[in-house]
Amino acid sequence: MSQANADIGLIGLAVMGQNLALNIADHGYTIAVYNRHYQRTREFIEHCERTEPARERILAHGDLAEFVRSIERPRRIVLLVKAGAATDAIIDQLVPLLDPGDLIVDGGNAHWLDTIRRERTLAAAGFRFIGSGVSGGEVGARFGPSLMPGGSPEAWQMLEPVWQAVAAKVDPDSGRPLDGSAPGRPVSGGVACTALIGPNGAGHYIKMVHNGIEYIDMQLISESYWLLKQLGGLEADAISSVFRDWNQGELSSYLIEITGDILQQKDPAGDGFLVDKVLDAAGQKGTGQWTAASALEQGIPANAIAEAVFARSLSALKEERVAASAVLEGPAIRRESDTARLVESVRHALYCAKICAYAQGFQLMAEAQRTYGWRLDFAAIARIWRGGCIIRASFLQKIAEAYTRNAELSNLMLDPYFRDALQNGQSHWRDAVALAVRNGLPVPAFGSALAYFDGYRSASLPANLLQAQRDYFGAHTYERTDRPRGSFFHLDWPVEDRREIES
Amino acid sequence: MSQANADIGLIGLAVMGQNLALNIADHGYTIAVYNRHYQRTREFIEHCERTEPARERILAHGDLAEFVRSIERPRRIVLLVKAGAATDAIIDQLVPLLDPGDLIVDGGNAHWLDTIRRERTLAAAGFRFIGSGVSGGEVGARFGPSLMPGGSPEAWQMLEPVWQAVAAKVDPDSGRPLDGSAPGRPVSGGVACTALIGPNGAGHYIKMVHNGIEYIDMQLISESYWLLKQLGGLEADAISSVFRDWNQGELSSYLIEITGDILQQKDPAGDGFLVDKVLDAAGQKGTGQWTAASALEQGIPANAIAEAVFARSLSALKEERVAASAVLEGPAIRRESDTARLVESVRHALYCAKICAYAQGFQLMAEAQRTYGWRLDFAAIARIWRGGCIIRASFLQKIAEAYTRNAELSNLMLDPYFRDALQNGQSHWRDAVALAVRNGLPVPAFGSALAYFDGYRSASLPANLLQAQRDYFGAHTYERTDRPRGSFFHLDWPVEDRREIES
Repeated sequence: MSQANADIGLIGLAVMGQNLALNIADHGYTIAVYNRHYQRTREFIEHCERTEPARERILAHGDLAEFVRSIERPRRIVLLVKAGAATDAIIDQLVPLLDPGDLIVDGGNAHWLDTIRRERTLAAAGFRFIGSGVSGGEVGARFGPSLMPGGSPEAWQMLEPVWQAVAAKVDPDSGRPLDGSAPGRPVSGGVACTALIGPNGAGHYIKMVHNGIEYIDMQLISESYWLLKQLGGLEADAISSVFRDWNQGELSSYLIEITGDILQQKDPAGDGFLVDKVLDAAGQKGTGQWTAASALEQGIPANAIAEAVFARSLSALKEERVAASAVLEGPAIRRESDTARLVESVRHALYCAKICAYAQGFQLMAEAQRTYGWRLDFAAIARIWRGGCIIRASFLQKIAEAYTRNAELSNLMLDPYFRDALQNGQSHWRDAVALAVRNGLPVPAFGSALAYFDGYRSASLPANLLQAQRDYFGAHTYERTDRPRGSFFHLDWPVEDRREIES
Repeated sequence: MSQANADIGLIGLAVMGQNLALNIADHGYTIAVYNRHYQRTREFIEHCERTEPARERILAHGDLAEFVRSIERPRRIVLLVKAGAATDAIIDQLVPLLDPGDLIVDGGNAHWLDTIRRERTLAAAGFRFIGSGVSGGEVGARFGPSLMPGGSPEAWQMLEPVWQAVAAKVDPDSGRPLDGSAPGRPVSGGVACTALIGPNGAGHYIKMVHNGIEYIDMQLISESYWLLKQLGGLEADAISSVFRDWNQGELSSYLIEITGDILQQKDPAGDGFLVDKVLDAAGQKGTGQWTAASALEQGIPANAIAEAVFARSLSALKEERVAASAVLEGPAIRRESDTARLVESVRHALYCAKICAYAQGFQLMAEAQRTYGWRLDFAAIARIWRGGCIIRASFLQKIAEAYTRNAELSNLMLDPYFRDALQNGQSHWRDAVALAVRNGLPVPAFGSALAYFDGYRSASLPANLLQAQRDYFGAHTYERTDRPRGSFFHLDWPVEDRREIES
């Protein structure tokens, strides 16, 4: 029977779990690990033997009870298993083995409502529970992810030192990520990309919104690429140069950087550039869809995020599109002769639409905190996203500054910095969208973000007609511009004697 | 104790229930009615005494058991109560009073997953259950709604004569609604706007999609109105004339017709037109949101429908918009001097976008039938929607013809009639969207439908870059255009030794 000799435990040794375990061990913690199938645990340990300096701090167990007993009390156990039923199953197995006050941390991509439910159930049984977003993919998990924990302050106190240690670090002044990690030599110094987001499901909700924003960021970059290729006639390496140039300025970000890498990648299996051989059918795993569905449910106009999800769905209908392309004609594409001007239009379109997309994401979080009774710190969330995660960007430093200037900012677009950027870029943005529309090139994200911008800054919209229609056919009533809000009227439409009735 | 002297029963005497009960009685059925609060039943009967020829065929009951006993066996009981918990509550009360083989019909706006659950539970207990969409608002319920029932053929056999009798009727050749109903004098002849849609939740699902389409139809009309007003400088009555003109052609529909009525309506409380006094903050009740969420979940790119839902959400942020309008500047609006040309551009934009929106709705139903194991007849669904419901339009006759020509049509846009309409109208449509974009007027529905059209007819889309990004940061793999579908590759991005691995 084993001694309690581990500082922390981790269950689930798929790639994310392996990498997070190594990251934790690199920071001096002794970590017990367990996986449902022991074969994977054995392979992981063999891998550690070969290459990992922190090997001696990783203790493998084939038995769950033994694994639990090996962890010092009050225990900290991190789960990195599949979201959904698998998470519930392992929690059910764990609970009889735990002592009151022990902490379970779910680091998977759980639905926030599941996290709220699990936290409630476990708290009632005397256990602590944190649902933590873990962003940054495999490399992030290994050398510094962005960590978005939700739970009680007591639970967070138990987890905080570990999460602070393993999270990505950014320079406190510039907000830029500190790189240079290698096995056994973690980054020292800097500000950790983690903080308690809020109670119960808040962390997983924010991670979900992060992913929804990731969808729209990627879609905006894809539309930029497409206009440069189709209207500018640029080859992949020329477009790579454009992105590398953009990465020096206000668009500087991980996704712009890797786009520069990707577009200059030669095809390892033949001539030309690899990107030209990659099939244009996008996959998705669900968090983008959850974000858009939550926006619909909460009545937040996150149309650009939804368009990014739908754009992936449409791309996946590859065979249908190929068949339709032979039936449905569009205009001939007219190349733009002034490439520099096109590049400038697209750059502004990308930046302006990005501002709108983030405005939608933050509006959504602001509504969620009302719905679920959280109290979110938007500057802190933006700071957490500056490093480790897929959407990390200098842009997030600007957002953190905006919410630091005004914690009650009702929409990101209203902050002076972003307002000026929109003011400065919108004519280029309009040029890019109009060009795409004329040439038959789909830019659903550029276009929907522009409609959002123009709608949000419109004191009046045609919903007056829509409300009149609803009253006409369904007696749903309407308000009047010349009466106080909350007074509702109904007209007995189309009869001749039209009496308006206040209800 | 009462005799079994009623042909059918109805529970729930809000406006929809009252009107449907009167409609059923008008067709010669003796109908027992029950309401949770008897006061409303009493008021209803008093109303019937005064004005309804069918008064003697309406039998009121204050006791649920007595109500049930009054109905001939096997019983048919229609529910028109609030969707959700109230529906479950009344079913729970009813079940102990029923006999095997009795039929419950839920005519509320139930979520289709609830209908699937209820049908399963009741069938297991020996009862029959139909979830039926009832569309057409108060007037439809009274004089002929569009009825979309889902359930077993045995259950439908019990309901069919009643539903056939009370449904809206259309001319069998033109597909145009037969009007002229009055209390006690139902329309005779014509084809009834009902048919068994499919098993369990199929009827409620199709009703939900109907409502989602209604959202986008209304949004498209609102955007048309807005461009005519803002770019054409037309007053409400002038725009009314435009809609009345459009109602003579291929756009002929209930919603275009009532828009013509609404726009010429003078303000009963002051000078000018009422529409100019109606507050531009739209309400919504949930079915549009459900439609968009179902599209997200099923991976169907119904972006225009989602945009219509988001447009309502954005309109509802009236105070935020007014505040933002003082901060965020846009271009000055430039009036179009050629009004006739503008009207023509907008008309084509409206028709083309409408085609795309319906294409999305039918694509969504086609996917739902795969997901839920239904077998839908799309021509029949289009025929049912020709009369009674809010989206009734000559357009639906064209859709019925398209699916009659080809029941396996993969997308409505590919049908020759609609393809030609898109071909004919798209340059005007592009003009309208480009004009809106340049002038800072939001047209999310026109624009998103155009992006859908252009995306669907694109053999290639920039999702190749997006898949490369996903492989770069998340090892999600990609397919290649020069290899068979189903072969997945991964590159160990950005290291120098770039080996592509087939997984």
